[in-house]
Amino acid sequence: MSIIGKSASRLEGEAKVTGRAIYTVDVELPGMACGRILRSPYPHARLIEIDARKARALPGVLAVLTREELSEFNPYYGAAYRDQPIVALDKVRYAGDPVAAVAAVDESTAEEALALIELEYEELPAVMTVEEALAPDAPLVHEEAFEQGELQGFQYRAPDEFKGTNICYRFSFKKGDASEGFRQADYIFEDTFTLPAVHHYSMEAHSTVAQFDGERLALWASTQDPFILQNHLAEIFRLPANRIRIIVPYLGGGYGGKLSVKTEPLAVALSWKASRPVKIVHSVEESFKTITRHGARCRIKTGVAHDGRLMARECEIYMDTGAYADAGPRVTQKAGYRAPGPYRIPHMRTDAYTVYTNSVPAGAFRGFGTPQVSWAYESQMDIIAARLGLDPLELRLKNLLDKGEDFTPGDRPVDCDLREGLRRVAEAIGWHLPAGKPNSGKGLSCSMRDGGGAYKLASAAVKMNTDGSVVLFTGTVEMGQGAHTALSQIVAEELSAPLERVVVAQLDTDVTPYDAGTNASSSTVVMGLCVQRAARDLKRQLLARAAKKLKGRVENLTLREGKIHAGEGPGISFEEILTRWFGSRGGEIVGRGFYQDKKSKKAVLGFPTIFWEVSWGAAEIEIDPETGAIKILKYVSATDAGKAIHPVQCSGQDEGAVMTAIGHTLFEEMVYKDGALVNPNLVDYRLPYFNDLPKTFDSILIENQNGPGPYGAKGISEGGLLPVAPAISNALYRAAGVRIRDLPLTPEKVWRALKEKKAEGGRR
Amino acid sequence: MSIIGKSASRLEGEAKVTGRAIYTVDVELPGMACGRILRSPYPHARLIEIDARKARALPGVLAVLTREELSEFNPYYGAAYRDQPIVALDKVRYAGDPVAAVAAVDESTAEEALALIELEYEELPAVMTVEEALAPDAPLVHEEAFEQGELQGFQYRAPDEFKGTNICYRFSFKKGDASEGFRQADYIFEDTFTLPAVHHYSMEAHSTVAQFDGERLALWASTQDPFILQNHLAEIFRLPANRIRIIVPYLGGGYGGKLSVKTEPLAVALSWKASRPVKIVHSVEESFKTITRHGARCRIKTGVAHDGRLMARECEIYMDTGAYADAGPRVTQKAGYRAPGPYRIPHMRTDAYTVYTNSVPAGAFRGFGTPQVSWAYESQMDIIAARLGLDPLELRLKNLLDKGEDFTPGDRPVDCDLREGLRRVAEAIGWHLPAGKPNSGKGLSCSMRDGGGAYKLASAAVKMNTDGSVVLFTGTVEMGQGAHTALSQIVAEELSAPLERVVVAQLDTDVTPYDAGTNASSSTVVMGLCVQRAARDLKRQLLARAAKKLKGRVENLTLREGKIHAGEGPGISFEEILTRWFGSRGGEIVGRGFYQDKKSKKAVLGFPTIFWEVSWGAAEIEIDPETGAIKILKYVSATDAGKAIHPVQCSGQDEGAVMTAIGHTLFEEMVYKDGALVNPNLVDYRLPYFNDLPKTFDSILIENQNGPGPYGAKGISEGGLLPVAPAISNALYRAAGVRIRDLPLTPEKVWRALKEKKAEGGRR
Repeated sequence: MSIIGKSASRLEGEAKVTGRAIYTVDVELPGMACGRILRSPYPHARLIEIDARKARALPGVLAVLTREELSEFNPYYGAAYRDQPIVALDKVRYAGDPVAAVAAVDESTAEEALALIELEYEELPAVMTVEEALAPDAPLVHEEAFEQGELQGFQYRAPDEFKGTNICYRFSFKKGDASEGFRQADYIFEDTFTLPAVHHYSMEAHSTVAQFDGERLALWASTQDPFILQNHLAEIFRLPANRIRIIVPYLGGGYGGKLSVKTEPLAVALSWKASRPVKIVHSVEESFKTITRHGARCRIKTGVAHDGRLMARECEIYMDTGAYADAGPRVTQKAGYRAPGPYRIPHMRTDAYTVYTNSVPAGAFRGFGTPQVSWAYESQMDIIAARLGLDPLELRLKNLLDKGEDFTPGDRPVDCDLREGLRRVAEAIGWHLPAGKPNSGKGLSCSMRDGGGAYKLASAAVKMNTDGSVVLFTGTVEMGQGAHTALSQIVAEELSAPLERVVVAQLDTDVTPYDAGTNASSSTVVMGLCVQRAARDLKRQLLARAAKKLKGRVENLTLREGKIHAGEGPGISFEEILTRWFGSRGGEIVGRGFYQDKKSKKAVLGFPTIFWEVSWGAAEIEIDPETGAIKILKYVSATDAGKAIHPVQCSGQDEGAVMTAIGHTLFEEMVYKDGALVNPNLVDYRLPYFNDLPKTFDSILIENQNGPGPYGAKGISEGGLLPVAPAISNALYRAAGVRIRDLPLTPEKVWRALKEKKAEGGRR
Repeated sequence: MSIIGKSASRLEGEAKVTGRAIYTVDVELPGMACGRILRSPYPHARLIEIDARKARALPGVLAVLTREELSEFNPYYGAAYRDQPIVALDKVRYAGDPVAAVAAVDESTAEEALALIELEYEELPAVMTVEEALAPDAPLVHEEAFEQGELQGFQYRAPDEFKGTNICYRFSFKKGDASEGFRQADYIFEDTFTLPAVHHYSMEAHSTVAQFDGERLALWASTQDPFILQNHLAEIFRLPANRIRIIVPYLGGGYGGKLSVKTEPLAVALSWKASRPVKIVHSVEESFKTITRHGARCRIKTGVAHDGRLMARECEIYMDTGAYADAGPRVTQKAGYRAPGPYRIPHMRTDAYTVYTNSVPAGAFRGFGTPQVSWAYESQMDIIAARLGLDPLELRLKNLLDKGEDFTPGDRPVDCDLREGLRRVAEAIGWHLPAGKPNSGKGLSCSMRDGGGAYKLASAAVKMNTDGSVVLFTGTVEMGQGAHTALSQIVAEELSAPLERVVVAQLDTDVTPYDAGTNASSSTVVMGLCVQRAARDLKRQLLARAAKKLKGRVENLTLREGKIHAGEGPGISFEEILTRWFGSRGGEIVGRGFYQDKKSKKAVLGFPTIFWEVSWGAAEIEIDPETGAIKILKYVSATDAGKAIHPVQCSGQDEGAVMTAIGHTLFEEMVYKDGALVNPNLVDYRLPYFNDLPKTFDSILIENQNGPGPYGAKGISEGGLLPVAPAISNALYRAAGVRIRDLPLTPEKVWRALKEKKAEGGRR
């Protein structure tokens, strides 16, 4: 292969570094108004009265949207339930909940108008944590059950037993007989781990430009799944899908925070009312108040034989989904399903709950439920090893699933050698060497998630003009991950054409072939297959024509450097074949490719996993005993790429994932005070700095061509996050003997733990 | 059929009448500059020196384009020859020829900059008419031969014998033995007819917005053939086709004047130089100076038997193509080929010439060469009738080709009953009744042209979303003719779905399936077939799926009102089938349709005619003997629609065509003085007013389902123009006994003819 596996320049690289690349915020339309949102200051309150007359009367105000203007629409939407209104109807449910919105000729007029809206609230008691939400007689965030809102075929419903509670979904999963497993176990470990809500923090905040002209809606949106958004908007605004056109400019990062519906309905409703295009661009604070990652509490009970074999596990997971469910139920389901981790555990029992609280809604985030459980099970593995006096590496190697072994019956068997990756990170971190410094230590972790998502449906097209130039049509959003380059490499490889000959068309739901979304690390496999199939379909058409021209058989033709050859001759260029075909320089040929998941009754989740996204991490850290600060001396990440289409981008993705997880591990958490988020900005919300990165940072791509994607590729990039927190926490334990069960591992928390341990040591 | 043949509301009607519809002039891009063009004041001059330094230095000027900035590009382009430069290189060839262009922050700065460009010309003698151009030792408009520029497969070349002349193309055509035919004839008629250049006068002048970002070119353009334009721009700017994206908003009329390349390269070159989007919107005057219809001189010699049978014809046609050939050679070819008209003439000899002059370039215009010859042959038919004492109706009926008879061997035989239409207009005008008023008279005419163009290549796609809503992808430009509505009717009919369910996607060469252009009355047949095939392809996919679901055989399924039925059951909706198919509300199915002309060695023009566009006209006029003014009392137009997809639109097209031709007949002509066009505006260039329209105006659609298009449809709309001038002129003869051979029939010309006739009568 001449293009696959090579690290070409990014197709959109120059446009991005020169500032030419267009993001939604750059879209300007004639007559475009500025949209601004008024948000609730209270975490929970009844909305008694809203008087927008003064705002409406302000010169320059084009539309004011309150609950009184929603009668034309279906005001409720949501990825799992239709529980979220465009603006508050009866209640506000978190501090930041949109109450009203304004479209005005400019930003200052819009801001002024917001200030003129008069509101009367009746404050209600709020539930800010899972504990408060689950307390008996807790105030209810939602009094009623909601229609199922999911458009991708999943069925979510809270069992009847949870009526009148804040639980909106439960996923339960059993394998073997957990009680029996625990009876057989020699040791039983029971620990509870927590991690807080964190924010995605994309470089680009949520942005939308909506233009409803009375007949059709055009939307430029920072969305990872425009076709899903199209369906949501069709329902909300009672429009047929063909009257909604969503165009996705470049996206400045998604990480799950731009899936499903976010601020788009507000922009659309304002445009509808104002009869003008309306742009809404979030501030950082507003994006913080729009979507977050589920904070969670995970109680994990594991039975172990004396030799370290895992015998049984029971998991109880509470996911804090905030005021609206968003993708919470599906995240919960995945957390529950992945609770065994990459280990052989004959007896499993999981209950995972989605819980409403009066905080910012939580939805999809890289890892999608796995970080919440891998933090628990990989921390506990080291607790077990310590207790049994086993090497954490050996304990893991003993319990890891074999390649080809079932994770659960009916699902895709494990598709890589789990031990290989673990041994490689252990070796790279110098596992068997003593720590090089005082107050330092090493930790290991590995994780596995069912990658690629479910209910996947995707398609792609590849067009060749008669001059041999190529246009790729893909619904995969280029959000910084380099998908356009990787997918174009597949086209170029299949057509034996230079990569420069391929251009990716603007993503536009009117014309781009359907794709379910850029999520779940799916693009390389799912869209990659579509693109490969489309390119091969095109090639088949070319070869059939060339065979006539060259009087050869299709089987004997080869493609080399943009030409078709029969044997050793000079070959015939694509351009020549096509020009003869059409008798002119007009015309084109188009190849198409499709992908659709196949349902399986045998699979626990209804669909077999597309591929296993597997990752391993090893950390060496040093603790400052005076401050409790953790410095990462070295981090090694290994990820199973199957086949790296573009190795530099794969490593970049992996490094980025680790960096994100370092933030989650050491600093990040959304802090509420009196029901309100107090750190929705970069000063108070601590992201990793360059100085926080490991001094030495290795990313190992494992390539065994064992993926279902093109050339054996798998999806990567979410995996890298998963081992980070437990690897660092395990290193902390090995460096200083302290075990922290609640993320993040802030200096204060570490310092207190060190102090407590010292005190305990003193007491002993 | 429930939708075909019904006159639905136009799909884009509301958008247009409310002003919402977007035309190129409405496109606004951030940072967009205003482009303006400096034009030559001289009809023919050598460009000695050009100094743009002062213009460049003017604050607010972003780019100045002169011949010095063309080195990166292929500066010459053209539909038939690459004879036209982006801006003048060595010479200017007509008054209006672009010499330089400026992009500036606003219009006034651009205008100011134009005034600062210093030019030195050396005037050359000009040839303003065909006669001057053909005179011995006439100055040459072009000293050199040019590369063939046509991208649609035609080969044009002036024979070597014309080197060193202003003739750039000749089409010669023979059938039988003309000399022998004339020997056998009892009468020989030889007449010379002329008609002047006229302007298309679209409501929307030529407009372009170009945005070249260093890698890709996006162009919003008022073009009738964006894919052809894309190929031209690819050559000019040395870009692969996939780096050029042309978007066509609504078009405010085309009539042939927006085919091929017009001002687009100027906008692109300015954007290239300015690194900004650039908009160029022509004034009316500039559009007048951009493109026109060929003025022509046609000498026609016809041999007739004593009973009125046409025996032989010789035609010599000179088409004034102005300073650049544009589509002139092809127009000339068509004029030559169509010289027999709808009549059986066993012996034919035609020579048609394309001649350069120093006037505004002439290109495609409704009728495409036919008005130049039908004016001649239909006038002469009445001259023959008068001389032989035959009724003009009877003379025509005697000579009209039969249905099924060859026009030329190898071409499509005549596909309608030519006599039927003629009888119908004769009856409607009351042919056999005496004139109702003094100074009034009636005239008849009929005409036939090979419709649909040649080298036609087209494709379409129809997408159905899972909610059953439909998007049609078509390269046919909606330029006021109602094509989007008619094509959507075909989709709706094929899918038994309401018309409201169909939306037409924005035309965008990146994503719209290839189409050779909206011209030659081709859309209903050529694109109509593509659309019908695409809809049927989609239906086939739907039915295959429904058959599984309904456990029926595809053959036994029927579509009714958006549902699929097996027998009498309640049926299953499209939405239900698709949702089950994809397991969710995601997904789509796409049907595709193609059309490609088949070459034929037997056909004179290389391709058989797609359909015969036939039209008949009858006029009753009244002359004011004091002023010579012609008032049209009644006009009857009949057109062979095959099957009218949308009868109201067909009649509207036909009426519009007649109205245009009334202008050409009575008023319109481009007037030059000292080499410069003196009437490029609506004050001096006389278009028809409402008062000029016939008091009674009938449009008869003849529907015999004899066309090759969907449901037997044919293309219409150009045909209606053709009979108008001869019908009115023939009526003038019958009213007042004067025969005018030079259009337009201005009051002055008529008054002079009346006066001369009176004088002659006095002399006799």
